[in-house]
Amino acid sequence: MKNIAVILSGSGVFDGSEIYESVLTFLRLEHNRVRYQCFAPNIDQLHVINHLTGEVAEGEKRNVLVEAARLARGDIKDLAEANADEFDALIIPGGFGAAKNLSDFAVKGADCNINPELVRFARAIHQAGKPVGLICIAPAMTPKLLGNGIQCTVGTDADVAEAINRMGGDHQTCAVDQIIVDTAGTVVSTPAYMLAGSISEAASGINRLVDKVVELA
Amino acid sequence: MKNIAVILSGSGVFDGSEIYESVLTFLRLEHNRVRYQCFAPNIDQLHVINHLTGEVAEGEKRNVLVEAARLARGDIKDLAEANADEFDALIIPGGFGAAKNLSDFAVKGADCNINPELVRFARAIHQAGKPVGLICIAPAMTPKLLGNGIQCTVGTDADVAEAINRMGGDHQTCAVDQIIVDTAGTVVSTPAYMLAGSISEAASGINRLVDKVVELA
Repeated sequence: MKNIAVILSGSGVFDGSEIYESVLTFLRLEHNRVRYQCFAPNIDQLHVINHLTGEVAEGEKRNVLVEAARLARGDIKDLAEANADEFDALIIPGGFGAAKNLSDFAVKGADCNINPELVRFARAIHQAGKPVGLICIAPAMTPKLLGNGIQCTVGTDADVAEAINRMGGDHQTCAVDQIIVDTAGTVVSTPAYMLAGSISEAASGINRLVDKVVELA
Repeated sequence: MKNIAVILSGSGVFDGSEIYESVLTFLRLEHNRVRYQCFAPNIDQLHVINHLTGEVAEGEKRNVLVEAARLARGDIKDLAEANADEFDALIIPGGFGAAKNLSDFAVKGADCNINPELVRFARAIHQAGKPVGLICIAPAMTPKLLGNGIQCTVGTDADVAEAINRMGGDHQTCAVDQIIVDTAGTVVSTPAYMLAGSISEAASGINRLVDKVVELA
């Protein structure tokens, strides 16, 4: 049975993994009758956002792995333990956590750095020719995570598209219910909540992405 | 268009709303083309559970409404503002938050008390003959929330069933993909993660519950 790694970045759209995108990913992986294992880096979040007010919760600290465990009902491992040999594919849901905790793209844009454990694991998956699925804002990491010239999408956001291209990527515009597969055929991305106005809209693209990643795995 | 209130109790199975049950509820409400509005009480959580270790996070405090806002992408209101005249039905997903924050059933069992704002709102919905849907452990509140003699289910858990009956309820055993509708035809419950071993199993009962609540609304 195919075994897919899912990398989370907390739990909540404004400072972690987007909850709906993550649950839709899990549900579609189950639908495809594959196994999956969640991972997250064992690091502090950039900050904590009060999701009621949208403000930074001053003085509050939360750990990415501990918060991501909420999204996995406790069944999650430290990203440092992830071994590419054990997995057939990798999927990273969106949410600002991908740009604040997995990378610092939200702060530094095209000058961003990516979590070294994520780079190690994702490159090993990619270099083995296994598929990588990137959802929402997570594809902004594509050039620095996987290498130059790889086609990817965050939908229609011109600023993020320009930053991706500046880093050596190749941004393609894409509708919410569609996916972009790179020319080498192993990197799959979809805009989800970069464009979605509802959970079902997000699901339309995420289901397609998960199906394609599983097919390629 | 029918308008459904969804009451959340935090964000995370061990100290708040069960995330998968909540997202499956939203997704199925959308599928039914009805509107919904999330609410949560503006109170402190009973405690914070580290979902990685399962232990209480000593000294940490979180607010139920603020954490539940993560599950609603910020689109949530204080339960104190909920007006039964504006809604056609009410659904409460499970997770320990229903037994720790919406009530103290997890601590006091059959001697539990229920949040007074929830009692006010749910009784007004129920007394107007509008349907109430209760998922997972939330049906344990049925007798004290809605009145005596109402059929409901938490699946097959003998201890919770006995506590429900002791409070004046009428527990019925139920499979994970089924629902119990009370004899008056307005209270609907399903076991979800009281029995489910996967998200799709939880979905099988939750989809049925949401469809029935919307039909009755």
